[in-house]
Amino acid sequence: MTEYSDNSIMPLISHLGIAVEDLQSAIENFSLLTGDNSPKIENIPEHKVKVAMFGESHASEVQTARIELLEATTDDSPIAHFIRKRGEGLHHICIYVDDIEAKLAELQKQGVVLIDKTPRIGADGNKIAFIHPQSANGVLMELEERRK
Amino acid sequence: MTEYSDNSIMPLISHLGIAVEDLQSAIENFSLLTGDNSPKIENIPEHKVKVAMFGESHASEVQTARIELLEATTDDSPIAHFIRKRGEGLHHICIYVDDIEAKLAELQKQGVVLIDKTPRIGADGNKIAFIHPQSANGVLMELEERRK
Repeated sequence: MTEYSDNSIMPLISHLGIAVEDLQSAIENFSLLTGDNSPKIENIPEHKVKVAMFGESHASEVQTARIELLEATTDDSPIAHFIRKRGEGLHHICIYVDDIEAKLAELQKQGVVLIDKTPRIGADGNKIAFIHPQSANGVLMELEERRK
Repeated sequence: MTEYSDNSIMPLISHLGIAVEDLQSAIENFSLLTGDNSPKIENIPEHKVKVAMFGESHASEVQTARIELLEATTDDSPIAHFIRKRGEGLHHICIYVDDIEAKLAELQKQGVVLIDKTPRIGADGNKIAFIHPQSANGVLMELEERRK
């Protein structure tokens, strides 16, 4: 038996992000695929996206990984840029870390290319930072400090 | 408090797959990023890949989502084809389902394009099937029947 509350087991993945053209039709697809018919919808103007989070009901209790659909809300949104370049599809992975400042310092020391050298605040109020895909085999990797 | 053993809460995501050119150097990158220094390495000749699974130690206890690095072992491996076309990066998501035959029948009825109309056996002995990216907003989606 395992509980998360004591941090003894920390899940690796917070969520993964998928860039979509049209959020509503994508929600229909992923509701069907995942069986989750009530994703949490959120508008995040500072990131120029509207998102739908699947698996949130699980996550709130046990913090299992979620699927985040992202639709651009402006033409200069990073998601709009991504879709123009690569089309719809997997966009990023977000993994949990204990201490994001310490982790960024460790990674920088190892020569990892950071997009964010210092953390910023994500949609849910957690500290986040992005790693450049060139240091993660083509994957845009987000770090998220897990709430204590 | 939540236990998985009674299936009351079922994690959404089994793992996500990342196509890499060179498994050894990718393992170094992801060990650094994830803090997991002992990924499980497996050769899967029937899929023409060698894989490294990160987060396995968590998963064995609580089935949290894992990260799977995939290196092609032949030139005609699907992973070799993917890298030639798109480069290294996120390749697929695998989500859990309760009854894979019932799920495939439901999806087919709804017009979802299936790569596998009937399940096949995955690396770990579980039943799996792939959904075509055209029915999942550009994402190659794998279904995995969760062990009872």
